[in-house]
Amino acid sequence: MSGTVHALGEIGLIARLSRRLPRGASVETGIGDDAAVLRLPSSRSALRLLFASDMLVDGVHFVRRRTPARWIGWKALAVNVSDIAAMGGEPRWAVVSLGLPPDTPLRFVDELYAGLSRCARRFGVSVVGGDTVRAARVTVDVAIVGTVDARRVVLRRGARAGDRLFVTGRLGGSLRSGRHARFTPRLAEAHELLRRVRLRAMMDLSDGLASDLWQMSRAGGVRLRVEAARVPVAQAARRCRRRGCRCRVERGLGPVYHALMDGEDFELLFAVSPAQVRRVPRRLGRCPVTPIGRVVSRGVGVELEHPDGRVTPLTPEGFKHF
Amino acid sequence: MSGTVHALGEIGLIARLSRRLPRGASVETGIGDDAAVLRLPSSRSALRLLFASDMLVDGVHFVRRRTPARWIGWKALAVNVSDIAAMGGEPRWAVVSLGLPPDTPLRFVDELYAGLSRCARRFGVSVVGGDTVRAARVTVDVAIVGTVDARRVVLRRGARAGDRLFVTGRLGGSLRSGRHARFTPRLAEAHELLRRVRLRAMMDLSDGLASDLWQMSRAGGVRLRVEAARVPVAQAARRCRRRGCRCRVERGLGPVYHALMDGEDFELLFAVSPAQVRRVPRRLGRCPVTPIGRVVSRGVGVELEHPDGRVTPLTPEGFKHF
Repeated sequence: MSGTVHALGEIGLIARLSRRLPRGASVETGIGDDAAVLRLPSSRSALRLLFASDMLVDGVHFVRRRTPARWIGWKALAVNVSDIAAMGGEPRWAVVSLGLPPDTPLRFVDELYAGLSRCARRFGVSVVGGDTVRAARVTVDVAIVGTVDARRVVLRRGARAGDRLFVTGRLGGSLRSGRHARFTPRLAEAHELLRRVRLRAMMDLSDGLASDLWQMSRAGGVRLRVEAARVPVAQAARRCRRRGCRCRVERGLGPVYHALMDGEDFELLFAVSPAQVRRVPRRLGRCPVTPIGRVVSRGVGVELEHPDGRVTPLTPEGFKHF
Repeated sequence: MSGTVHALGEIGLIARLSRRLPRGASVETGIGDDAAVLRLPSSRSALRLLFASDMLVDGVHFVRRRTPARWIGWKALAVNVSDIAAMGGEPRWAVVSLGLPPDTPLRFVDELYAGLSRCARRFGVSVVGGDTVRAARVTVDVAIVGTVDARRVVLRRGARAGDRLFVTGRLGGSLRSGRHARFTPRLAEAHELLRRVRLRAMMDLSDGLASDLWQMSRAGGVRLRVEAARVPVAQAARRCRRRGCRCRVERGLGPVYHALMDGEDFELLFAVSPAQVRRVPRRLGRCPVTPIGRVVSRGVGVELEHPDGRVTPLTPEGFKHF
């Protein structure tokens, strides 16, 4: 029982906690995916609920003095819309719990809600309640409920040996460019993808590609391999001038290092069977879709194939909460 | 646009924010009740979803050094179960967002989840997900989804002139006695009540009877009158020895002052028509049910009838967040 939250880390903590929590027969998928998948009581319909939440804290997920309030509001809902999109669902309703220091200017709160509202309108979400409390730092927690047809649900687990891996968009430098708050959740892209391709597994990228690949690996019991040369790198990740940044020293990866490790991309990572690969479009609207690797075998692990052909283990060094 | 959150207050803030938020046709009742009432897409069934959230912050809703972690966990879910009970519904699923300082001992988190788990089991809730993030202070936000038959939903609005007002349990001294964290949400009592009586309006008591009466008054557009002598006072509220406490000076109310103002009771306040009064039981299991007053007329306002017959306005001086 000794030790702290810091020592265990976020993933260890969630695993530890989720073992003890009760889970009824209505829960088709519980803790560990982008959203829970829930069956309604005494209903034979294929309708499933999706339920998720994400908490943003000043100084951790945004810096109040640097991120305009409207983008904090946008982000608070957008990260949840992204979770629903990654399950193949439609976002429907959200509740917002807001922790505020008493001296928070009303202008700040108005702007935060303006951003939240804009995101809600854009993605068809009704904001239906929540809570407003005193707190030492600005804290925004949004919980979202979506719906999905049971036959269309896509989980993190489900990838099999031989499957190909793809990502939407370009990765890295999200905090640097402000994209971490202004991003467009890939809801339309997920739906378009589901119309065209049968997906084996999907999740959104929040902690960083390396860390999120580990999540997909563990969830599905599969070993994944990513080709460094194929990972699509965002402009902002190419502009790193930080002295001694690991992108310069870490096995000569360069900007790819940021695409693997930075996190907060909120793009989609998905797996399709070899037979479905030709159905995957190169673009979804204006959003590029890039093959980045494959499922090597059963097991657990993530490997990086370097441009020179070497294959090394890829550690999950994305953003650490604790 | 000038001013701070403190100057506006919680109720003013919620009113200000809720005006701007989008609300789709599926939302039968949105912000302003204990939970939102939601219609499922393309469903003709009478099933409705209930959706609510409550955020607890160290130093505001509990004091980490004084409240055992398992009661913090219990409370975080129980306040949400109480919201669903007050709507006449069944709690089903919850997600938990947990903000933790990195040096939080694992033992604390384990205990918190043990309490949460116990509450979940007791009231049939599946905990299906959430988020775990770094924060300066322990912050627990639980969002809950319940279900209810559309014909059984009870709202805050709905009280009419002539209706009688009742409360469950005994009020006041909740923080002093620790009841604020250890309370039993009145779920069984609400269901038993709904089997026996047709209710006009119901809500749970969280901010303090005086403040919550104001909420019911505003929601329904009705003036309410409470008889001081009838308000059931908890033992802990009778033991106030604080020098200069307002219970000694405020119009000689004595312990009733605490029953009106302390808050965190999590009992039920409900209104029934005169014809239904005889159906209201005096007890629900071991929980007393007490008539405390009536709906005087249309309008907005809350009055207190003193033991000597005087009637004075009752101001909503319950717990202030900002």
